[in-house]
Amino acid sequence: MLIDCDIHVGYASLADLLPYLDAPTRELVIHSGTNGLAMPSYAWSHPTGWIRKDTYERSPFGSATFTYISLEQLRAQHLDPHEITFGVLEPDEAAAFAILPNSHLAAKLCSAYNDWLLEHWLQEEPRLRAVLVVPAQFPEAAAAEIRRLGARDEFVAVFLPGAARIPYGNPVYDPIWAACDELGLPAVVHTHFESVGIAGPITAAGQPDFYAEYHTLCGSGMYGHFVSILCHGVFERFPRTSLAMVEGGLVPFVGLLWRLDTNWKSCRSEIPWCKRPPSEYVWEHVRFATQPLESPADASLLAPAIQGLRPWETLMYASDYPHWDYDEPEQTLRMLPQDWREAVRYKNAAAFYDLPLPA
Amino acid sequence: MLIDCDIHVGYASLADLLPYLDAPTRELVIHSGTNGLAMPSYAWSHPTGWIRKDTYERSPFGSATFTYISLEQLRAQHLDPHEITFGVLEPDEAAAFAILPNSHLAAKLCSAYNDWLLEHWLQEEPRLRAVLVVPAQFPEAAAAEIRRLGARDEFVAVFLPGAARIPYGNPVYDPIWAACDELGLPAVVHTHFESVGIAGPITAAGQPDFYAEYHTLCGSGMYGHFVSILCHGVFERFPRTSLAMVEGGLVPFVGLLWRLDTNWKSCRSEIPWCKRPPSEYVWEHVRFATQPLESPADASLLAPAIQGLRPWETLMYASDYPHWDYDEPEQTLRMLPQDWREAVRYKNAAAFYDLPLPA
Repeated sequence: MLIDCDIHVGYASLADLLPYLDAPTRELVIHSGTNGLAMPSYAWSHPTGWIRKDTYERSPFGSATFTYISLEQLRAQHLDPHEITFGVLEPDEAAAFAILPNSHLAAKLCSAYNDWLLEHWLQEEPRLRAVLVVPAQFPEAAAAEIRRLGARDEFVAVFLPGAARIPYGNPVYDPIWAACDELGLPAVVHTHFESVGIAGPITAAGQPDFYAEYHTLCGSGMYGHFVSILCHGVFERFPRTSLAMVEGGLVPFVGLLWRLDTNWKSCRSEIPWCKRPPSEYVWEHVRFATQPLESPADASLLAPAIQGLRPWETLMYASDYPHWDYDEPEQTLRMLPQDWREAVRYKNAAAFYDLPLPA
Repeated sequence: MLIDCDIHVGYASLADLLPYLDAPTRELVIHSGTNGLAMPSYAWSHPTGWIRKDTYERSPFGSATFTYISLEQLRAQHLDPHEITFGVLEPDEAAAFAILPNSHLAAKLCSAYNDWLLEHWLQEEPRLRAVLVVPAQFPEAAAAEIRRLGARDEFVAVFLPGAARIPYGNPVYDPIWAACDELGLPAVVHTHFESVGIAGPITAAGQPDFYAEYHTLCGSGMYGHFVSILCHGVFERFPRTSLAMVEGGLVPFVGLLWRLDTNWKSCRSEIPWCKRPPSEYVWEHVRFATQPLESPADASLLAPAIQGLRPWETLMYASDYPHWDYDEPEQTLRMLPQDWREAVRYKNAAAFYDLPLPA
């Protein structure tokens, strides 16, 4: 039994979404810019390529025509060899819809993407589930999309990228949390598009210069959302929802949670709706995904550094297939103490995403 | 023997700097705005007060006329009772000079502040040393200030706030690093004024709403500078300088350094001037200050979580006197394993700041 909480899929081109769009949005997708609508993207490039080298052909001079992984590739390279029981699909370029300035356009693209995903992936492969892509910058529209599709078994959570104008605990997002609460759906905050589109620089130091910096710091926006969601008492007001932090690393959250518990004691007059220490809400409502698992040269340092997150209760395996820093399941589990492994392999994720494990 | 790496001092009002300013800058300080020049400040207030309650009087209705700690108070409340051998003074409001949009004005204010500090604090109390306040946003002027005063024994490092437009590894700052290298002076990056003045939001999630959030996340800009300085090979090019990270927490740096070592291996074509793993530069050139020491409810979790920073070689005691979250020396040292304490108490700081320990 194995659940992978982070598999990325994507369309070959935005034009793939045309059949699912209304007429004015089709016009925008076809006629915007020079070659049709283009999504904002990173100012940093991975120096050896974003995607696993064994998934596409590249000429020695760098040119390639990678579109995206096919379902057949996903099955052959990942689902079958690793005997994945369930894999949760996360967006790739579609994560950028939530950082588009035009939030009306974003809402249309999100709905089209979810319909495309349902038809081409989720209804084709019973091992797959997905997070629902929503226009986070337009909370009422996001809530409508959650209510449109969130009750379907194929969708197991709501996707919120790390990049944002406003942290996700702020009351402007209450419609999203109310919809999640109503359907008992978790939210997933996943690093994506920090410093891109409507989002500010990745840290208060300003924009970094290199991809190596960017990737090291990519959890920074997620730290902001994590702390915001806890300080706004989201789980007091919306107790049927929960939260996964995916692809932001683990160790920094240990220190931030300790500081937050301390600050909750010092600042209670400011956040009186937080009735219990923030960590208690974390144990009940928040989960963390493994990839990219920190890999100290002395591997024995890892477990002691992350035990403050109670990984035996909160940690869930994630591969990040097909990205360059993909973590194989056995490679990840080997890094963790034996008595955490069953929980990380599938138990924590099955409970969190409410997945029907085979007998 | 005890060295405190983080004691804050301040002027009662910017007008205190008038004797050290030239005529046009005096005009600006006196006539700007309504009541004279005012520095930008935080949008978040600590809900029970920024400063230790035993240092000033406050009416039950909140009004107070706190200006700043006097040298007598610092001696009576901190230096004498804790038998501090050396205390390193950090700025308080003066940290905002480096996030002023007017960098020419910033340069004048920095020089005046350093002269004021020398006359009123450093020459009055032989146990005190200080970091030099410089206009980080105007690197040539900062380098000139470092060369003007940096050779004096009273100044033991150069202050750079966590808030910035551009991370401190970027080549625009090379004049600062060259001046530090020339004088063998370290730089100190200290959390200050993130999301204020010319600096962007504290994380890519956007501005937080509560002080409890702000303070939990306050190290975020420092993470960006830490990674930037390492990725730009500052210590390859300027081997006589070094770096302390002050008041940004400890645990997150453990995870970020592990990720950075991993990313250095994956991205070497992008940063070929980084000849060795980033952690090796850290062991030689980077130190961390204790306060605010993370305080897990289960105190036994702390040492295992931070051992990846090699605290016995890199950690230095800091109190943050007179701020609300002041850490007493014995309280801090008790949290650490016995065999780290001598190093943290004074040995690492004496070596880092090149302080002449009494026989």
